[in-house]
Amino acid sequence: MNDANTKQTSPSRRNKGEDLPLVVGIDLGGTQIRTAVMRGATLLSRVGLLTGENPLPDRIIPRMCTAVHQALQEANVTIDQIAGIGIGAPGPLNGHTGVVYSPPNLPGWTNTPLRDIFFEKFTIPIFVENDANAAALGEYMFGAGRGSEEIVYVTISTGIGGGIISNGRLIQGIAGSGGELGHMAIDMHGPRCNCGNIGCWESIASGTAIARRAHELIALGKGEALLNYALTQQKPDATADTPSDLQRAQSYPTHLNARNVAEAAAAGVAEAKQIIAEAAEGLGVGLVNVIHIFNPERIILGGSVINIGAPLLDPAKRVIAERAMKVPRETANIVLAKLGSDVGLIGAGALSYYNR
Amino acid sequence: MNDANTKQTSPSRRNKGEDLPLVVGIDLGGTQIRTAVMRGATLLSRVGLLTGENPLPDRIIPRMCTAVHQALQEANVTIDQIAGIGIGAPGPLNGHTGVVYSPPNLPGWTNTPLRDIFFEKFTIPIFVENDANAAALGEYMFGAGRGSEEIVYVTISTGIGGGIISNGRLIQGIAGSGGELGHMAIDMHGPRCNCGNIGCWESIASGTAIARRAHELIALGKGEALLNYALTQQKPDATADTPSDLQRAQSYPTHLNARNVAEAAAAGVAEAKQIIAEAAEGLGVGLVNVIHIFNPERIILGGSVINIGAPLLDPAKRVIAERAMKVPRETANIVLAKLGSDVGLIGAGALSYYNR
Repeated sequence: MNDANTKQTSPSRRNKGEDLPLVVGIDLGGTQIRTAVMRGATLLSRVGLLTGENPLPDRIIPRMCTAVHQALQEANVTIDQIAGIGIGAPGPLNGHTGVVYSPPNLPGWTNTPLRDIFFEKFTIPIFVENDANAAALGEYMFGAGRGSEEIVYVTISTGIGGGIISNGRLIQGIAGSGGELGHMAIDMHGPRCNCGNIGCWESIASGTAIARRAHELIALGKGEALLNYALTQQKPDATADTPSDLQRAQSYPTHLNARNVAEAAAAGVAEAKQIIAEAAEGLGVGLVNVIHIFNPERIILGGSVINIGAPLLDPAKRVIAERAMKVPRETANIVLAKLGSDVGLIGAGALSYYNR
Repeated sequence: MNDANTKQTSPSRRNKGEDLPLVVGIDLGGTQIRTAVMRGATLLSRVGLLTGENPLPDRIIPRMCTAVHQALQEANVTIDQIAGIGIGAPGPLNGHTGVVYSPPNLPGWTNTPLRDIFFEKFTIPIFVENDANAAALGEYMFGAGRGSEEIVYVTISTGIGGGIISNGRLIQGIAGSGGELGHMAIDMHGPRCNCGNIGCWESIASGTAIARRAHELIALGKGEALLNYALTQQKPDATADTPSDLQRAQSYPTHLNARNVAEAAAAGVAEAKQIIAEAAEGLGVGLVNVIHIFNPERIILGGSVINIGAPLLDPAKRVIAERAMKVPRETANIVLAKLGSDVGLIGAGALSYYNR
C-alpha cells in the first residue's frame, strides 16, 4: 500500500536529548533576561538578569550578551562548543529574518535586526522567534507535545499566545507573525482588543479580560461582594464592613487581578463565579475553533490563568463537547503544559535543534 | 549567515507541469462525478457522470471506476501510464487513511475505505482528500497560489470551505479533518450552524447565510421590497403589485438564493444591501482571523458567492484595514482563485504530485 498517505515522525527531532549538542537559550521577557546553556531540556547553567525599566536595544542587547558569557562560564564551556543561540522575544518579530519589529512590551525597539547583531558578536547560528512560538517548540520537543507532530500550544496569562505545529513544522507565516491565536475574533460584536481588533479570544478569556470584567462590574456598582472579598484578602488590616473601605478600594481597582477573581469565585462570590464562567465559555469557544481549524492531536494549555483549574476548564470542555464536530473533537487530547516556568528558556534553546 | 532561517521553495512541487507524469483526478460532488486524465493542470480527457439520487457507495464507486476507464480510453492511455489517482470528496474524511467518514452530502457512506477499494481495483497509488483541501492544492500548484508556500484558500458558496498550506504542506491534522475554516466561530452569541457549533463563519458569510437572512426578513414581514424584486426577476409573468403575489411568493421562499439577494442589492433594494453588507462584515472578520492565525502570503478566494464582487469584497477589505494587525495585514495579498470550476478536478489530480 502507498505509505505516503500515513503520518511519519521525523526521528531527528524526537530524541531524548542525550546526543544533542550544547545550545544557549535566551528568554527575553518584560522583567527578566533568562539565559542558560543546555543540552536538550537539561540546563547546565542558568543566569537571570533584570530587564530594567529602560529596555532600549542599546542597553538590553549588551546585557543579553553578558548573560550569555556568564552562562557559558558557569557551565564551564566555551562558545566553540555551542551549536547555536536561540532567542525567544516578545512579538511581533520576523522569525525568518530575526528582525524584532516594535513589540508593545519592548518600547524603543523598531525593526531591530537582533539575529544579525548576535551573529556579529558570536559568529555561530542564531535563531530568533516570538516567545509563544518558542514555548510551543519547547513543549513539542521536550514537554507535553512529545510524540506528536500535530500540536497547538495555547498560553493564557495576561494575554493569550499561541504556537502551532503541523506536519512537524512551526506555523510562522510569511513574515514570521503566524500563530496569533489570541487575536482570533470569537465575538465580532464583543469588546475592543488592545490589538485593534474586536472580540479577540484574548479580550474574552485572558487574565486581563477576567480582571476587566471585574472592574466593569465594580464601576457599575454591581461588584460589591467581589470587591469586599478581594479587600479582605488583600488587606488583612482592613475591615470590609464600612462604606469607607469600599470607597477606598474603588480608588485602586487595578489591585484586582484574575487570581483575585478566581479566589473569590472559589469562596462562593456569585459575581466572581459568573465572570469565571464567562471566561470559561470564551475559552471553550476558542478551543473549538482550534479543533476545527487544525484537527490537532494535542492541545497543550499553559500560562498562569490555567492554574484556576476545574472552574475554568470544566465549562470549557462542556462547550467543546456541545459544539465541536465529532471527528476532530474525538481525536483532540487537551493536556496541560509540562515545562512550567522554564518553557520559554527551553523553547529558546530548542530553536537551534528545530532549525538544524 | 545561517540560511536555515530564510524561507525556501521546494522546487519539486513548483514546476510548470511539462515533465510531470500523467495522473487521474476524480472530483466526487453532490451532483456530478467529474473525472479526467491530466498532466499538471492540462486535461487530456474529461468525463462527467451524474452522481444520481441514490449515492450509496455500492452504486457510486463502480460508477467512479467506470469514469476512470472512460477517461483513460478518451485520452488514449492505459492505467500503466498513470502515476496515481487522486480523489477529492466531500468531508469529513481522513486524508491519511483515505477513509470517508459520513459526509452529510453523501448519505449512506459510513467509514468507507475509499482509498483501499480503489487500490484493490487499480493497484497504483491512490490519494483521497476532502474537496476544499484538494482545491487548495490545485490553486497552490497550478493556480493563484503558485510561487508561495504560505497560502490560505477560502471557498464561499453554499458553505465556506478552507484549505491551508503552510511551510509548503497542507494542514490535514491528525485525522485528516483540518482546515475547516468555515466552522470557526466568529460570533459566539450568533446563529446555530448546521455543524452544531454557534456563530460559525459559514453561518454568517456563506450563500446559505445570505439566503437565510433574506427569509428571516420575509418571515418578519420586513422583506417585501426584496421579495417583490426577486419575484419580478424570477417570474416575468407575475405582476408584483397585488397582495396575492406576495402571499404566493411566501409559500416558496426557498426560491430566494444569495444571487437573488445580490441582484436585488445591486438594483438598490435597501434590505438586500443591508444583508450583503452584514455578510461582507462577517467575511472580513473571518479573514482577519485567517491573517492573524496564519500570516499567509496569499489568501485565495473562490466559490460562487465571491462573484458578488465589490459589494461583498470592498466592505470586507475595510474590516481588514480597520481590525488586522499591521505586519500580517501588510504581507497578506488577497487574490481571486484562478482555476474556476475545474479547481476540484485539477486539485484531485494534484494529490498525486503533492504526495509523491
